[in-house]
Amino acid sequence: MNLDFNSWTCPLPLRDYPKIVLGHGGGGKLSNELIENLFLPAFSNETLEKLGDAATIDLNGILQNGARLAYSTDSFVVNPLFFPGGNIGDLAINGTVNDVAMSGAKPMFLSAGFIIEEGFEMENLGRIVGSMSQAALTANVRIVTGDTKVVERGKGDGVFINTSGIGIVSGGVNIAPNLAQAGDVVIVSGEIGLHGIAIMSVREGLEFDAPILSDCAPLNGLVAEMLEVTKEIHVLRDATRGGVASVLNEIAKSSNVGIRLQENSLPVPRIVRSACEMLGLDPLYVANEGKLVAILSREYADEMLEKMRSNKFGEKAEIIGEVVAEHAGMVVAKTGIGGTRVVDLQLGEQLPRIC
Amino acid sequence: MNLDFNSWTCPLPLRDYPKIVLGHGGGGKLSNELIENLFLPAFSNETLEKLGDAATIDLNGILQNGARLAYSTDSFVVNPLFFPGGNIGDLAINGTVNDVAMSGAKPMFLSAGFIIEEGFEMENLGRIVGSMSQAALTANVRIVTGDTKVVERGKGDGVFINTSGIGIVSGGVNIAPNLAQAGDVVIVSGEIGLHGIAIMSVREGLEFDAPILSDCAPLNGLVAEMLEVTKEIHVLRDATRGGVASVLNEIAKSSNVGIRLQENSLPVPRIVRSACEMLGLDPLYVANEGKLVAILSREYADEMLEKMRSNKFGEKAEIIGEVVAEHAGMVVAKTGIGGTRVVDLQLGEQLPRIC
Repeated sequence: MNLDFNSWTCPLPLRDYPKIVLGHGGGGKLSNELIENLFLPAFSNETLEKLGDAATIDLNGILQNGARLAYSTDSFVVNPLFFPGGNIGDLAINGTVNDVAMSGAKPMFLSAGFIIEEGFEMENLGRIVGSMSQAALTANVRIVTGDTKVVERGKGDGVFINTSGIGIVSGGVNIAPNLAQAGDVVIVSGEIGLHGIAIMSVREGLEFDAPILSDCAPLNGLVAEMLEVTKEIHVLRDATRGGVASVLNEIAKSSNVGIRLQENSLPVPRIVRSACEMLGLDPLYVANEGKLVAILSREYADEMLEKMRSNKFGEKAEIIGEVVAEHAGMVVAKTGIGGTRVVDLQLGEQLPRIC
Repeated sequence: MNLDFNSWTCPLPLRDYPKIVLGHGGGGKLSNELIENLFLPAFSNETLEKLGDAATIDLNGILQNGARLAYSTDSFVVNPLFFPGGNIGDLAINGTVNDVAMSGAKPMFLSAGFIIEEGFEMENLGRIVGSMSQAALTANVRIVTGDTKVVERGKGDGVFINTSGIGIVSGGVNIAPNLAQAGDVVIVSGEIGLHGIAIMSVREGLEFDAPILSDCAPLNGLVAEMLEVTKEIHVLRDATRGGVASVLNEIAKSSNVGIRLQENSLPVPRIVRSACEMLGLDPLYVANEGKLVAILSREYADEMLEKMRSNKFGEKAEIIGEVVAEHAGMVVAKTGIGGTRVVDLQLGEQLPRIC
């Protein structure tokens, strides 16, 4: 009931950018500045400030057996809408299923909100919705509430989809970005860089011997199996926007630890490596849509790797590094030739509208 | 993991529109066709098919005392972003708070997803986020998870906001659009048409003696007080897109009953009436953002009206009609001069991008 035109003053760190730039949505430094200086102060509460892929909520004790609710949202603006290995529809389902799963939850219910541009082909909408239906079935979640808006031609871009998701975290499971500990190992669930390169190959019209397919996949089944090994996983994150490098940077800062990577151990497919060289990209920063990073005590590492590799979405899981007490807040990589480089957060995103 | 380009055939009722038109997002017949022929078959499940403002879920018995979870989502694409009486920010909070409340739930947690156009002024984003913060405080809900995407200039329109919300429905409360019964009364919580006319007055550059302010407001407090009168409210809907007429049509169809309105009883402010005449609009179809329609047994009507009128968001509540066994699925209005007219669902929406 208040126009509120005049009561807000732009805080200092945002003043370098009086207008929004693409990088503010890129998952790098600019995104973080926006979150820390605008969204967090405005919406401040303990749950939001944890900044995991999903919020976890105890619902004032109304849930039985110490369970908590996991809750997450994501908007999808990927361009192009259809790409090798998927489309915006299954991306919107798997993306939110994965965010919810990264709290250790079993994802159960999703919402779907569509913003469609006038003139968008009904057939394409049907294909996208069909993919969502299939992806929801595969991930064993139900879409229980939705909304559709249409904007005039030229005021949107085909279709944007927002999904949110809720799930249940069992009692005793406590997974969050601030729980990494020195001595932990860092595991990645498989080959990195595929989603980003699949999108870029379409956008740039690149042709390879074999098509590069997005790795878009639901990871909730993998997470459920990982929790059978131990409930004491410290951190889970899916390495989407900004890739493995950005996710690890956020964990290092949030947990106030250092992370040391072994570059040789990174599972980068040859074709991703070639494409990255061609495009001037670093695979560590390229988005994935079906890969998670797990951080847990070294004592469970072997058993966890074995378990992950028995799941089709974890077949190529590898230990890629360790958590250390030194250089808190920083990620460093031991390079192939024995040197060390800092793996910093990038300013924006190498690839806009990747998801 | 499936391109799914070819497996979907557009069902018959949608074939008249090979491309999406604005009306598909208008909350009228075209919206319903899209929902019934595309979204429902694709996402089919019992919860979604109830088509209330919010889904209600029993969470497999994990909630205590027969409580259920209410869950809803809405995307906001209102144009202009700032309007007399509010902006897209408080609209996005109140809109979802109200949707959740219409299941009889106490709304508790919200998600917020932003799709921002490159070049959008940081100051305006700040004001919008500030309004969201204030609206969340007023409605006593917390924003616990969020997401920000940026699209290139010309691929969006300033900012679109999706919110979803969850709340708790107490055991014994069972409110849904299909529960209206012949003999029930139809109550509206106050003056209608204000939000739509506030938006239109800005868009069309109309000037009135006094500015027309949107009625954008959180209705969860009002609903909580109404439930003190009786838990046996049959239907609650907030009369947004498509106005009171569209909501009543949906209820009539869903409950398979007729609804008979008394036009004389409709609380239409004089200024809305004048504006509607000038613009060629029918106030029954104009969007509200702080008005609900309640349907309940006549025995509670007087006490309910009294309770509603003691709340500032229900001050001008009125009984506007009754539920009848005749003309099932239809809404008719007794006109001021003694005639009767059918109040049908409109094809699209009189006013695109009203919310």
